[in-house]
Amino acid sequence: MRTGKFITIEGLDGAGKTTHMAYIENRIRDAGMPLVSTREPGGTELGERIRTMLLDRGDLSIGSRSELMLIFASRIQHIEQVVGPALDAGTWVLCDRFTDATYAYQGGGRAVPESRIRILEEWVQEGLQPDLTLLFDATLEFAAQRTRSRGTDRDHFERQGRDFKLAVRQQYLERADRFPGRIKVIDSNGSIKDARCQIDRALAGFDRSFAGM
Amino acid sequence: MRTGKFITIEGLDGAGKTTHMAYIENRIRDAGMPLVSTREPGGTELGERIRTMLLDRGDLSIGSRSELMLIFASRIQHIEQVVGPALDAGTWVLCDRFTDATYAYQGGGRAVPESRIRILEEWVQEGLQPDLTLLFDATLEFAAQRTRSRGTDRDHFERQGRDFKLAVRQQYLERADRFPGRIKVIDSNGSIKDARCQIDRALAGFDRSFAGM
Repeated sequence: MRTGKFITIEGLDGAGKTTHMAYIENRIRDAGMPLVSTREPGGTELGERIRTMLLDRGDLSIGSRSELMLIFASRIQHIEQVVGPALDAGTWVLCDRFTDATYAYQGGGRAVPESRIRILEEWVQEGLQPDLTLLFDATLEFAAQRTRSRGTDRDHFERQGRDFKLAVRQQYLERADRFPGRIKVIDSNGSIKDARCQIDRALAGFDRSFAGM
Repeated sequence: MRTGKFITIEGLDGAGKTTHMAYIENRIRDAGMPLVSTREPGGTELGERIRTMLLDRGDLSIGSRSELMLIFASRIQHIEQVVGPALDAGTWVLCDRFTDATYAYQGGGRAVPESRIRILEEWVQEGLQPDLTLLFDATLEFAAQRTRSRGTDRDHFERQGRDFKLAVRQQYLERADRFPGRIKVIDSNGSIKDARCQIDRALAGFDRSFAGM
């Protein structure tokens, strides 16, 4: 029985995920919930090796369909080894990107047919869906400014062009329209304080443990 | 247009694949055919990295469904980058293991549902099938003796137990029954010379370039 709650955070690089991850972790812990904080691709030894192949690929050639398979290979292992056992034990799971990212990046960005992603999703997740998804959204200009100010090397997906990122953002927003109960958009173009207010509202609406905090 | 021929060789470790690979390569080259000799998992940089993860996994935890995805990630890349372009250019391709091995090892050995393998096969291969498959078959005792005499470290699959290997062998033989036009069983319990005679017969029956050689 999955008694823990599964929360995912999504968005383009630079849209505010990293900035707000620690804040969300603290809110959940302050509410008294045991928490596992993890990420995809990654979260297991296999997943982290796949993540390195995908993000730091250099000259390594990986087609869009191979990329899709690698992401689901990582996801299966992550669910079997980390996410599923935690939720079964009543622990909450906060995951930096999950299957919405696959629809956005591989579906939107790479134009992999959505029907294929959906079949893999059904096989691999067997009904498992996030209980809440916080989608951090910002204009491409704002996101680019934020990643530049970070000063770290850009990974494979950050190096993609404007059209790719527009398609990813568009696909994310379409999913938010389609699943309004689960996916809450956090407008991340304003101040950190403003985004935190939106996060608090989303958490309060999600679970009464957060109300009045 | 795929004008090259696609030949795969299959079988348990120790059943004679490695022993006869060079012989088959020479037969094809002697018949005047341009040849690419390759293997799965592997055959590309991505594929070889996946092969290392799968075969030399050590303590790395990889579930049977992740394993299946990794194998198809390698296969897609191999078809896109190596097998497809070679066949299109009229080059013959000899591949050490292909999708029959997935049915045998992951389907038979790991009990992954055959229907899932079939769906991935259709997506990934888009109708591409070997024109000829030589299935090297030997008893488990004979195969074990041959791998021992090799003296190299056993990989992950070679270290599996007797039940696993029996299921793999059984699944291979069932596929040979189901596809008698494509899959030719080479009884590899006898001498090398005897196996070579069977290989020659299979090649002569496959393409008249080999008749009378």
